Amino acid sequence: MESQNQTNRSVYRNISPLDHRYYLSNREAFDELAGYLSEDAGIRYLLRVEMALLKTHLAYRDGQVSLPDIENTVSPDEVYAEEEKTQHNIRALVNVMKRNLPENLRNLVHAGATSADILDTANSLRIREAVRKVVLPRLAELLRLLADFTEKYAETPQVGRTHGQHAVPITVGYWMAEFTARLGKSFEEIDRLSKNLRGKLSGAVGAYNATSLMVKDPREFEKTFCGYLGIEPSEYSHQLVEPEYLLRLLLEINTAFGIIANLADDLRNLQRSEISEIREHFGAAQVGSSTMPQKRNPWNSEHVKSLWKAFSPRVMSFYMDQISEHQRDLTNSASSRFVPEYIAGFLAAVCRITGVVKSLNIDTENLNRNLVAGGDMVLAEAAYILLARAGETEGHEKIRLATLAAERGRTTLREELKKDPAVWSSIEQSLASSTGLKAETFFSKPELYRGLAPEKARLLAGKYKRIAENFQEEL
Amino acid sequence: MESQNQTNRSVYRNISPLDHRYYLSNREAFDELAGYLSEDAGIRYLLRVEMALLKTHLAYRDGQVSLPDIENTVSPDEVYAEEEKTQHNIRALVNVMKRNLPENLRNLVHAGATSADILDTANSLRIREAVRKVVLPRLAELLRLLADFTEKYAETPQVGRTHGQHAVPITVGYWMAEFTARLGKSFEEIDRLSKNLRGKLSGAVGAYNATSLMVKDPREFEKTFCGYLGIEPSEYSHQLVEPEYLLRLLLEINTAFGIIANLADDLRNLQRSEISEIREHFGAAQVGSSTMPQKRNPWNSEHVKSLWKAFSPRVMSFYMDQISEHQRDLTNSASSRFVPEYIAGFLAAVCRITGVVKSLNIDTENLNRNLVAGGDMVLAEAAYILLARAGETEGHEKIRLATLAAERGRTTLREELKKDPAVWSSIEQSLASSTGLKAETFFSKPELYRGLAPEKARLLAGKYKRIAENFQEEL
Amino acid sequence: MESQNQTNRSVYRNISPLDHRYYLSNREAFDELAGYLSEDAGIRYLLRVEMALLKTHLAYRDGQVSLPDIENTVSPDEVYAEEEKTQHNIRALVNVMKRNLPENLRNLVHAGATSADILDTANSLRIREAVRKVVLPRLAELLRLLADFTEKYAETPQVGRTHGQHAVPITVGYWMAEFTARLGKSFEEIDRLSKNLRGKLSGAVGAYNATSLMVKDPREFEKTFCGYLGIEPSEYSHQLVEPEYLLRLLLEINTAFGIIANLADDLRNLQRSEISEIREHFGAAQVGSSTMPQKRNPWNSEHVKSLWKAFSPRVMSFYMDQISEHQRDLTNSASSRFVPEYIAGFLAAVCRITGVVKSLNIDTENLNRNLVAGGDMVLAEAAYILLARAGETEGHEKIRLATLAAERGRTTLREELKKDPAVWSSIEQSLASSTGLKAETFFSKPELYRGLAPEKARLLAGKYKRIAENFQEEL
Amino acid sequence: MESQNQTNRSVYRNISPLDHRYYLSNREAFDELAGYLSEDAGIRYLLRVEMALLKTHLAYRDGQVSLPDIENTVSPDEVYAEEEKTQHNIRALVNVMKRNLPENLRNLVHAGATSADILDTANSLRIREAVRKVVLPRLAELLRLLADFTEKYAETPQVGRTHGQHAVPITVGYWMAEFTARLGKSFEEIDRLSKNLRGKLSGAVGAYNATSLMVKDPREFEKTFCGYLGIEPSEYSHQLVEPEYLLRLLLEINTAFGIIANLADDLRNLQRSEISEIREHFGAAQVGSSTMPQKRNPWNSEHVKSLWKAFSPRVMSFYMDQISEHQRDLTNSASSRFVPEYIAGFLAAVCRITGVVKSLNIDTENLNRNLVAGGDMVLAEAAYILLARAGETEGHEKIRLATLAAERGRTTLREELKKDPAVWSSIEQSLASSTGLKAETFFSKPELYRGLAPEKARLLAGKYKRIAENFQEEL
Repeated sequence: MESQNQTNRSVYRNISPLDHRYYLSNREAFDELAGYLSEDAGIRYLLRVEMALLKTHLAYRDGQVSLPDIENTVSPDEVYAEEEKTQHNIRALVNVMKRNLPENLRNLVHAGATSADILDTANSLRIREAVRKVVLPRLAELLRLLADFTEKYAETPQVGRTHGQHAVPITVGYWMAEFTARLGKSFEEIDRLSKNLRGKLSGAVGAYNATSLMVKDPREFEKTFCGYLGIEPSEYSHQLVEPEYLLRLLLEINTAFGIIANLADDLRNLQRSEISEIREHFGAAQVGSSTMPQKRNPWNSEHVKSLWKAFSPRVMSFYMDQISEHQRDLTNSASSRFVPEYIAGFLAAVCRITGVVKSLNIDTENLNRNLVAGGDMVLAEAAYILLARAGETEGHEKIRLATLAAERGRTTLREELKKDPAVWSSIEQSLASSTGLKAETFFSKPELYRGLAPEKARLLAGKYKRIAENFQEEL
Repeated sequence: MESQNQTNRSVYRNISPLDHRYYLSNREAFDELAGYLSEDAGIRYLLRVEMALLKTHLAYRDGQVSLPDIENTVSPDEVYAEEEKTQHNIRALVNVMKRNLPENLRNLVHAGATSADILDTANSLRIREAVRKVVLPRLAELLRLLADFTEKYAETPQVGRTHGQHAVPITVGYWMAEFTARLGKSFEEIDRLSKNLRGKLSGAVGAYNATSLMVKDPREFEKTFCGYLGIEPSEYSHQLVEPEYLLRLLLEINTAFGIIANLADDLRNLQRSEISEIREHFGAAQVGSSTMPQKRNPWNSEHVKSLWKAFSPRVMSFYMDQISEHQRDLTNSASSRFVPEYIAGFLAAVCRITGVVKSLNIDTENLNRNLVAGGDMVLAEAAYILLARAGETEGHEKIRLATLAAERGRTTLREELKKDPAVWSSIEQSLASSTGLKAETFFSKPELYRGLAPEKARLLAGKYKRIAENFQEEL
Repeated sequence: MESQNQTNRSVYRNISPLDHRYYLSNREAFDELAGYLSEDAGIRYLLRVEMALLKTHLAYRDGQVSLPDIENTVSPDEVYAEEEKTQHNIRALVNVMKRNLPENLRNLVHAGATSADILDTANSLRIREAVRKVVLPRLAELLRLLADFTEKYAETPQVGRTHGQHAVPITVGYWMAEFTARLGKSFEEIDRLSKNLRGKLSGAVGAYNATSLMVKDPREFEKTFCGYLGIEPSEYSHQLVEPEYLLRLLLEINTAFGIIANLADDLRNLQRSEISEIREHFGAAQVGSSTMPQKRNPWNSEHVKSLWKAFSPRVMSFYMDQISEHQRDLTNSASSRFVPEYIAGFLAAVCRITGVVKSLNIDTENLNRNLVAGGDMVLAEAAYILLARAGETEGHEKIRLATLAAERGRTTLREELKKDPAVWSSIEQSLASSTGLKAETFFSKPELYRGLAPEKARLLAGKYKRIAENFQEEL
Repeated sequence: MESQNQTNRSVYRNISPLDHRYYLSNREAFDELAGYLSEDAGIRYLLRVEMALLKTHLAYRDGQVSLPDIENTVSPDEVYAEEEKTQHNIRALVNVMKRNLPENLRNLVHAGATSADILDTANSLRIREAVRKVVLPRLAELLRLLADFTEKYAETPQVGRTHGQHAVPITVGYWMAEFTARLGKSFEEIDRLSKNLRGKLSGAVGAYNATSLMVKDPREFEKTFCGYLGIEPSEYSHQLVEPEYLLRLLLEINTAFGIIANLADDLRNLQRSEISEIREHFGAAQVGSSTMPQKRNPWNSEHVKSLWKAFSPRVMSFYMDQISEHQRDLTNSASSRFVPEYIAGFLAAVCRITGVVKSLNIDTENLNRNLVAGGDMVLAEAAYILLARAGETEGHEKIRLATLAAERGRTTLREELKKDPAVWSSIEQSLASSTGLKAETFFSKPELYRGLAPEKARLLAGKYKRIAENFQEEL
């Protein structure tokens, strides 16, 4: 009772923004996540794994299993209080379990296991479930939204930009197809890798020393135990599961994080005052700046990029945790306790960008304004290609000089091209035979020079929409 | 009242180990830290800075300041509730303040400031105070303990090790002098840099646009405001204080973190079963392994190293936060909210290693056993130097061959050296003229070949003890 | 001719250790690698890709392809000299190609492509080939050596160590089975991912704008082009290939790097003076220290760990290169040029550790000395398990107290256990029924408590040996 | 002769871009740098340090020093050839030296030193000199250029941007004052820290074991030796100099790198097609894109940002190199050999951004266009402040609503404000009493609302110009 009070407090007393500010702004998702990744959940998972071990022992000893349900009666406070004595968290849990179990089962509690058998298996389980039940459903939702957006704006013209400079035309959907395709593949990888986390019951140094004294086939015993939990054993283990199963999942999550950060950066830039092609929702009562009343900032996109800056460097910790001396040292213990933080950080980013994508408005007026801002300059490539097609070998240089002339003279490219009738006529014929279009029409409608933008956008939207929907249906 | 309930919960529901496990194991230190770095404290600091601004306005308007004390009446819940409307945390605070202030002061609340004036100043203040009032006192205590240990064991012989191989003798105190000297210098740097965090009141883009409409000398106005808070203004600012004031402090904290991690690594290794020269305290009732009853693990030292792995890569986030487009983008906003986590992580490491150093026992028996385990091999250098001193140019090679012969024949170095009477006699004379010692004595007491180990240990212990004590006295 | 001279110089004038010191110590491997990853090779790959594009054009235009062989006539110097004029490396290459081709082909050179089509495709090709032809063969060789070692020493007893403390017995082969299994899986992943690098021919913003003016089915055209080079097109592309194909390969290489670094750390520690169970080759004429003639340092293992420290943090650059604004910015250009360095660094580590493993000697005398150094303490777990098996619920605590008594009294564990005849008899019976062994025998031969160490070692050795050999046969 | 050939080759065969592409594009700077940081220079520095040790011995033995000049006769090839035998680089150097020195000096070569005494001292020396003689002069030149630019455009109006959105006006010089002030402080720190690199002559484990047999006061002997080289000894040393002297310098260089990267990012963005306020030089014959003839890309600024991405994560290697077990392990050996690469990478960035700043053109037309693109919206803050000044408490909200109305109605802010005559009149009076300006004038000339932008710009330009010039004069 008293310890209950001692461990209750205002979330505002917390140090980590994940436990106050970002908890409050992602309450539903974080409450779900806490069901797997909080310390409370951590202890319940340990208990579940210890109970699976006990079940395995009973199945081997008695041929049948009948156990009291103590998974919901043991509290974290009780375990923590015991740990103050033992200074060892698993031994503390074991002691508490024994107190809650009938005498004739107590000798089998934890028997044959080392702490890491329990801890590593529990961690694999809870991270797998947190990813599969909390993160992936939200990622599937985001993927579906991206695919929808891609499809919806598959035909909407936009100027393509490279180096921040107007390049050649694309469409808004084609732009978003990038993130659909990249995130789609990362989604599939996270799905695959999260299924592949592993458990173990191979003892203190992994060689099944203890269980060899207890059962005939310790590897079979390990499989039974893992089977109760729906997990595979690590191919090799010393005291720990091989670190790379988890490492690869975390690296892929960081890959998805980078893709989302890239989207956020594009969104930030497309919302610049001078570009303003797209806008994330900004409430009518919302304040952009405490001193500049006119401000409508892309603060959600900025937030997502900032989360990436906070979390992506943590991959170095994950890599450092690959190294453990001999049959293990404990130097991955504290560091691996921060994996839940990392997943929470990624989840916060997914939630936020989802909100942004949901509320995204495009401004077709500005899209068009920007597309033609440089006149027909974005058709310089087309002009050069049409000349090359007609056999001209110095097309690029000719057009380059024409663009410089147009800039100096504040004319259009086509005006400059027409100054050399041979060139213009060559372009006209080349264009007609290639597309059937008139040069005059083409050069006054840059959006016609869009290649396969709409087709490719729809193709990718369709593919990844199905993948997202399949996952959602399986849930 | 209700919202109070909504934001109270068990610490076991938290995601960050800093808010459950490491909070519980560092309760006193973390409770102190929360006084500066929790969200609750964050809001109180913002309020303190806004009140300083109000004071500055009153001093300029009325020539005198008299303000109601609202710093303790505004609650985080109230501010968070308001933020749900404004979606802007500083505007929310301002609205709440206005509600709590008399009508005739309301127009001056926040006037002339942009949110970042308040936020950056408040952050500089609270990080400065967290470092100076919570971290540095504990670091001074650690430094004093290291210096004491250095002095206490200044004469105790130990074999020096390079590449994990026995090299030449040192003393235990000399070994620890390394960490005293390195951490001592880092302590001084943290002290210096923590005093140099900066505030600002230069407005939305740093050019004093708003305050220029309000007062004649906006830079003087900024100085008055900062003066109320005991902080200097940033030399330049746009919307933000220059990032490097804080960056350099964090980089130096990470430097100290690396030194502590190095000490932890040495402690881990010196506690190996085969070496066992030193031992951190292990309680009589404590359990080292849940399955191997004989284990006494160096778990605290391992923990410290692991914290370093978790936190040191975060410097990349700090470096990334140097970059802000134009007069600022918000992409440092979420990431910089994790600075308190970083400081808490460092503090946890300092507390833990302090406990280790306090309880450190040395095992003189094993120290001696290891020193002579290779017979007199650790005097190979001495033999070579004595020959070189006597004019021999191929001394190194001669001794090298003698060590190989001794290894093969399982004899001692001096037995091999005596096989060449000229060499041995040369060594005898060289040693006598250099130290007055007999060669036979010298080669049977490797601990005599210790150079200035005790002198240097005492010198550094004395210096850094004074520095630590001076800081503690100033508190 | 003159420029030839200007670009020739002593490797000792180079800045990067990869181009002097590590080039010289890995000459054969690095010369091979330079065939793919030097600047010289880079330019030849660009040329090969440009020629594939020209072939594609000819196949579409003429239905057949006949091209002069200019791939070996164009020199880097010529291209660099041209780049000084254009300040654009691909345009420079194109100009040089045109000069070397008949008039009637010149208009088709580079037509429809943007520089990045050529660059990204060439990079995918050369990195794929460098990995598959230089790195993977050496990794397969290392894997085979690890598997051989694992098998050879599958039965050789060794004390298992956790936290640097003696835990329970294993075998030397079982220890190495860890690295066989971990590196084996990473080898398979690198194999898979290196095949999956992609090319592109989708133009300036990826929407096939230019090729849409030239051919009917630009995606088919891209496939033909990629087909000539034996590569698949990127699923989506803007100006660049999706970054994640390469990213995932590099992350996996860094994963393998971590495994090798872990092996190096184990090797360093097992070579400590006090442990000395294993030794890397040290030449009879080799000098370990310039001043301590007796030193035989594990310098190769240290070197490998150090390379890991130099290269593993570079993954952050790879992650940062995921982000490119809009249809690409150029901020990945310089950074991605350092990918060859990264691969060379990894290759250097593979070569060095291979040499170490090849020359590894084990010292059975020291292996045995260490195993029994603590008497029968490493059987504390066995004693506890045997008691638990016999129904004892407080076995762990009883044994723990016995180990403390043995430590204090400098006795053995079994002497302490015998003091309580009920306990000893319970252990005797439990052991007999489990293994058929006598307790006296068991407690005097700790190596008997080895679980499935030899079986598991052989199993994994066999599996990964086959994988390595299959790869080597396919070459 | 033959080995000379073997180690000569085309730079195009190199792997590192620093030794081919970036060497060629920074030839003068890199040739200078190679004088300190190439392998060739490395060996010469080692020789210089060994000679200083020999001098010290002679000064102690004979009271006077007279030595043959062998510093220029020993070649790297010779040392490398010897190292193939000894497998130890310093021992190899020592052997070569002995061959080149008269018999009566040979016994004193290297006597009392361990390899690391020579290596660490030589590294400190050459890094110090590379930084002070190659890097800092170029950084001073850059700083002077930034200060000049700041001063030159101190009055030129520009719209301030936060979150990529137009905020309130500043001036172009004020924008650049940011980088002047930030880089200025970093310049001063690099200057300070580069002077503080340290040497050592304390032997194999730092306790002066060897020199204690040779001289009475080994610390005085170390000072004499260091004195010949113009360097201070490390306060503590084991086999190595304390790592933090160099670490802090590298961290600060990375800080400067971040500032330069931030400037590069601003330059990239200010060159966007839609903004176009500034332009880096683009040659008349230069090609921006191999397929889009109109492109003028900000490729130099992009390049600088990309270099930052390649190099900044390497700080993690520097931090990892803080940790060395006991009196040193060798795991910092390979990693620290890449420090020259890091410095070269930074130097390349400094050279490139210097070229950009030198050639920077501003476009006053576009600057003005952007400033007024939103009409008088950038004066929303001013309007709110003027109201607050007049006692209005809800000024921010009133103005916020006015800006929304103006957006909807496509009117200006002042048109909206005039709709409420009380508000407008309040603003008029407040403005007149504050600045003497008429509201009509003020709202039609947003550039008037610039605060202290010009004053602050000039102040900082003046300060840092002096600092840069003082450094340049001292050279």
